[in-house]
Amino acid sequence: MSVLVVGSVAFDSIETPFGARREIVGGAATYFSLAASYFTKVSLVAAVGDDFRDDHLALLNRREIDLSGLERCNGETFRWAGRYHFDLNTRDTLDTRLGVFADFKPKVPERLRKPGYLFLANIDPDLQRDVVSQVERPRLVGCDTMNFWIEGKLESLRKTLAQVDVLVINDSEARQLAGEANLVRAAAAIRAMGPSTLIVKRGEFGAAAFGNSGIFAIPALLLDSVVDPTGAGDSFAGGFMGYLARHAGDRPADDQMKRRAIAMGCVMASFAVQAFGVEGLLDLDPAAIQQRYDEFRALSHIDLA
Amino acid sequence: MSVLVVGSVAFDSIETPFGARREIVGGAATYFSLAASYFTKVSLVAAVGDDFRDDHLALLNRREIDLSGLERCNGETFRWAGRYHFDLNTRDTLDTRLGVFADFKPKVPERLRKPGYLFLANIDPDLQRDVVSQVERPRLVGCDTMNFWIEGKLESLRKTLAQVDVLVINDSEARQLAGEANLVRAAAAIRAMGPSTLIVKRGEFGAAAFGNSGIFAIPALLLDSVVDPTGAGDSFAGGFMGYLARHAGDRPADDQMKRRAIAMGCVMASFAVQAFGVEGLLDLDPAAIQQRYDEFRALSHIDLA
Repeated sequence: MSVLVVGSVAFDSIETPFGARREIVGGAATYFSLAASYFTKVSLVAAVGDDFRDDHLALLNRREIDLSGLERCNGETFRWAGRYHFDLNTRDTLDTRLGVFADFKPKVPERLRKPGYLFLANIDPDLQRDVVSQVERPRLVGCDTMNFWIEGKLESLRKTLAQVDVLVINDSEARQLAGEANLVRAAAAIRAMGPSTLIVKRGEFGAAAFGNSGIFAIPALLLDSVVDPTGAGDSFAGGFMGYLARHAGDRPADDQMKRRAIAMGCVMASFAVQAFGVEGLLDLDPAAIQQRYDEFRALSHIDLA
Repeated sequence: MSVLVVGSVAFDSIETPFGARREIVGGAATYFSLAASYFTKVSLVAAVGDDFRDDHLALLNRREIDLSGLERCNGETFRWAGRYHFDLNTRDTLDTRLGVFADFKPKVPERLRKPGYLFLANIDPDLQRDVVSQVERPRLVGCDTMNFWIEGKLESLRKTLAQVDVLVINDSEARQLAGEANLVRAAAAIRAMGPSTLIVKRGEFGAAAFGNSGIFAIPALLLDSVVDPTGAGDSFAGGFMGYLARHAGDRPADDQMKRRAIAMGCVMASFAVQAFGVEGLLDLDPAAIQQRYDEFRALSHIDLA
């Protein structure tokens, strides 16, 4: 089945201990789309400014992402600038300029209103709900959010979560959303808000998932070169949703199917962090993806004794 | 085979968001011994003061740990006090009083000089080497250390590491010891110093191991109640070494055997953190250990698709 994502397309300026890039194409919807595009047909709903040129679009065209929902508005594309610390686990935001993203009102084009899978990347929860109302109920709705909305728009966020099947957030966001330091208890509280599955992204430590079948956890791949963690979480979500859309399709995903999808999310994130920006996601060979997936399964495997 | 451990026995004063305890029995060698005692015969070499009473000893006697190497000296037992933060991942040391530990010169009693497995808990690397020189070459030498020795006694530590098979440290220590932020490259540098296997303890995120067979990583168990992380790393090491001593014995442990031993380390750490001090390690049922081990294997398991 196809995947529709709504979220940000941006220009990022990034400094890491391994180098710097200025105003390269980024944004949650971009990373998500590229990662998911290796598994199924992806459509994107987002807004960019008139500074977003054809060579920028070419990055997305290369992966045959449906851009009919990408609005070009008068003004500047959303810009973000950040600097990562020594161990890449923490970063400072140096600058955020919303540009045309400030007035973004997602409009799902007619032809995209029956998405099999829908992913609501991190935007205002009011807008996330508005998107859900524009489409026929998808097979599965995934969602991301951030501390900004948890602090500032909790009531709206709760209404959105009531319509979500899978919430994908990081561990500090999960603790904050639940008001509970223990992750297992936080997950129970969050699942009571709506999502039957909570996936907690743990950065270089992998991911944990909480669902009806219990708890699943895996470490991330250990890589000998990581240059830019930007977009890792969105690439994870893209790999996860893309894999499910392709392999579960219109059937419910069982526990093992979800575990494989989460593993594939980790694999796509691992490709993303090995290059600056979206570079690591542009030209992947399906065989290389499968090989890394197999390596990843071997990483934590213990034979029955 | 039997396990000999040399390290600290202490009185800990601990504050966590879930309560506080004053001057309870702790110390690396204590946690290690108790955890390992569920798998094999354990002997302990350490020093305590004349304030260490029979009821304190009883904790170790209960698990039938050989205490012939526990020296009772005039003076105070080593004391540590610390306070954990909200998420239990970070702590402040409030007080450290070395007491009799300041002049600790480990002496391995005659009858303990042929240990199958030897673990050098976190003490001065000069003393660690001195212990190695007192015993017949064991089947396997494990070792822990800390930032204090990496910063202050690097040359001595390097000499110790040249005699060690398995180094068990946390991730920030691994990065510091290697002078390298990337954990995979740090592991290669550390293994070049001597230990054929490096195990990196990652707290609530589990453990990663680097050896001749490549990389192994597992998350920690996700528990709905964690009250005191003190001693988790030492309990991990005890479970790991104890399992190997029992199941590999005098044969070399293959990769899968080491993986199972690491999983058992995580299991023993999980019991330790669910109660204050060593309480969680005192009365475990072997069936409960096996059950949690099975749960732990299921946590990360992905079927072949």
